[in-house]
Amino acid sequence: MLTLGTCWPGTGAPDDRFSGAETGERVITAGVGCDPLPSWNDGPTKQAIMDFVARVTAEDSPDFVPVEERIATFDNDGTLWVEQPLYVQGIFVFDQVRALAPEHPEWQERQPYKAVLENDTAALASLSEEQIADMVLTVHAGTEQEEFIGAAREWLAEARHPRYNTSYTRLVYRPMLELMDYLRSNGFRVFIVSGGGVDFVRAFSEETYGVPRENVVGSSLEYEYGADGRLTRLAKLSKYDDAGGKPESIALHIGRRPIFVAGNSDGDLAMMRYAATGSRPYLNLLVHHEDARREYAYDRESHVGRLREALDEARALGWPVISMSQDWKRIFDDGTI
Amino acid sequence: MLTLGTCWPGTGAPDDRFSGAETGERVITAGVGCDPLPSWNDGPTKQAIMDFVARVTAEDSPDFVPVEERIATFDNDGTLWVEQPLYVQGIFVFDQVRALAPEHPEWQERQPYKAVLENDTAALASLSEEQIADMVLTVHAGTEQEEFIGAAREWLAEARHPRYNTSYTRLVYRPMLELMDYLRSNGFRVFIVSGGGVDFVRAFSEETYGVPRENVVGSSLEYEYGADGRLTRLAKLSKYDDAGGKPESIALHIGRRPIFVAGNSDGDLAMMRYAATGSRPYLNLLVHHEDARREYAYDRESHVGRLREALDEARALGWPVISMSQDWKRIFDDGTI
Repeated sequence: MLTLGTCWPGTGAPDDRFSGAETGERVITAGVGCDPLPSWNDGPTKQAIMDFVARVTAEDSPDFVPVEERIATFDNDGTLWVEQPLYVQGIFVFDQVRALAPEHPEWQERQPYKAVLENDTAALASLSEEQIADMVLTVHAGTEQEEFIGAAREWLAEARHPRYNTSYTRLVYRPMLELMDYLRSNGFRVFIVSGGGVDFVRAFSEETYGVPRENVVGSSLEYEYGADGRLTRLAKLSKYDDAGGKPESIALHIGRRPIFVAGNSDGDLAMMRYAATGSRPYLNLLVHHEDARREYAYDRESHVGRLREALDEARALGWPVISMSQDWKRIFDDGTI
Repeated sequence: MLTLGTCWPGTGAPDDRFSGAETGERVITAGVGCDPLPSWNDGPTKQAIMDFVARVTAEDSPDFVPVEERIATFDNDGTLWVEQPLYVQGIFVFDQVRALAPEHPEWQERQPYKAVLENDTAALASLSEEQIADMVLTVHAGTEQEEFIGAAREWLAEARHPRYNTSYTRLVYRPMLELMDYLRSNGFRVFIVSGGGVDFVRAFSEETYGVPRENVVGSSLEYEYGADGRLTRLAKLSKYDDAGGKPESIALHIGRRPIFVAGNSDGDLAMMRYAATGSRPYLNLLVHHEDARREYAYDRESHVGRLREALDEARALGWPVISMSQDWKRIFDDGTI
C-alpha cells in the first residue's frame, strides 16, 4: 500500500526532523513525473489537489509552506473507509457485546445492550454515536491497551462486510491511500483525526494506512495507572473527538494548525474551518458519497455520516468536493470495485 | 545538533512507516563504528545503553524488538536541560507576570503573583509546581496556540540563565542530544514526556532537540473551539503530566508502552515502572545530578526535581543511574562546560 503513488518524488522533506514518521519518500522506485494519483480521474478535484501540493512545496512559490508546517489531517469513517450501513466500530462493539453477554446477565434487559442481543435492527440503526461510545467504554473496561487493540485486531481479521463480503480493512478507499502517500512524499505528516475510538483505529492504522499509532487522534477514554505499573481502561470518556472536539484534539496532540484536511461529514467542518482561519494556504477536501452503484449514496438526511452544513459551506467557499462516482476510478483497496 | 552521534548507522528503520519523524538515519555521514556517544565517558552506564540498543535491534537476537515498537520517552526538566535554580517555565511565567502586571492590578495583593511582583525569592523558591501551573493557565488565558508559542520563543531568545549567563536552549545536555540521535539512528521514535506545559516545550523542541511538536507530550490545558474557527486557551488544566499522569498520557498520545525511558526525578518513576512491566526488554535510565562543580548537586531533599524513591528503585533493580560527574565528559550543548 505504501508504494502507491510514490512515483512522484515531489520536493520531499529536506529537513530530516520532518521527513514524516510514515513518509513514502524513500520507497520511490518508479520514474519522475508519472501519475501519483492513478485511481483518480482527471478533473477539477484531482487538479485542485495537485495544484495545492505544487504551490505549497515549491520553494520559489509565494505560497511555500515550510516542511515542518505541512500537517494533513484525515477523518476516518466515510473518508478513509466504508462507514455504511453502520460505523465499523459499532459492529465490532455489537459483536463483543454478544460474545461477552454470558458474563453480563444484566444486559438482557438493559438498553442499548438488549437491542444488540435481540438484533433489533430498527433500534440498532437509531443508536447515537454517544450510545455506541458508551458501549465501547463499558464493554472493555478494565482491560489494558494492548489487550483491547489485540481484541480489535482479532475481530478485524474475521469480520466481513455484509454487502461486499470482504474484510473491512480491504474496504479502505484506494484513492485516499494514494493521496496520503502523495502528501507524505511531499513532506507532509499525515494524521488521522477520527470521531471513533483512538485505540480502535490504532488497531489497523499502521498496516492499512501506513499511519503509526502516535499519528492517530480520536475519541478517548481515561486510562488509570496502578502502582503495579499496569494501565487499565476506565468506563469514562476523556474526549469525544467530533465537531469542535477535532480542532481541540489537534491542538493538544499535534500542536499545529493543519493546512490540509479531508473529511466527509458535518463532524469534520470544525477542523476545516480551523485550517481555513490560519495564515497559511490550505486545502479542505470533502468526500461526497453519491455512488450507490459501487458504494453508497448519502448526505443531508443520513443518520451515519450526515453531510449538510459542510457541503453547503464547501460549495459556497469553493472547497473541492469529491464526487465518488466521477472522481474515483476505483473505490476500494481490494481492487475489485 | 542532529548530526551528533549519527556516525553510528545501527540497524536503522527497515520499515518506512517507522523511520521516525525525526530520525537521524539519513544524516549519517561519517564512517561505520565510530563512537555514537562521544560526550559520554566509557563505563557501565554508556555500556548498558549500547548493549541494550544492540540487543533490541539485532534481528537474530532473542531480545529483538520490531521497529514499530521502538518507543523512547524522555522527561525534559533536569533530564534534557537544566532545571535549577528553578524550572525554566517558572522563570518564563514570572517574567510574563511582571510584563503583564499593569493590566492586572489585582495581582498586586494576590499570591503567588504578589511574590513574583515583589521578587520575594523565599516565597518563589517554595512555590509548588501546581502553583506555577496555575499561573501558566491564568497568564495566557484567551490566547491562541501560536500566540503562546510565539511569546515563549521570544522570551527564550532573550532570557539568560543567572549562573551561566547564556540562553536556556544552550543549556541542554549534550550527552542526551547524542543519545536521542543514537536512538533515532537505530529506528527508535523519540518522544518528550514532560511535567511542563506541552506548548512551552514545543516552542523549542524542534530546533533544540529535533523533536517535532507532535512528539511532545506534557501537561496541558483546555483549548476551546469557537465557531469563528479560532481556538483559545482556557484557564483550565486538562492533564497534569507527572507521576502516574505520564504513563496515562503515553497511552493516549503514543498508544504504546515505551521500551526506553529517561528521567531524573520521582515524577518519572511511574513511566519507568510502566516500561518495566511490559513484555519487551526495556531500559530505564536515571540522571543523577551530583556535579555541583559543573552543574548542580541535588536529589532526596530537593524542592525542584526531587529524586528519592526512583533512585532507590533504580539501585534495587539495577537500572543504570547516570553519574553526571563521572559519566559525562561535557554537560551542555554550548560546548563551554
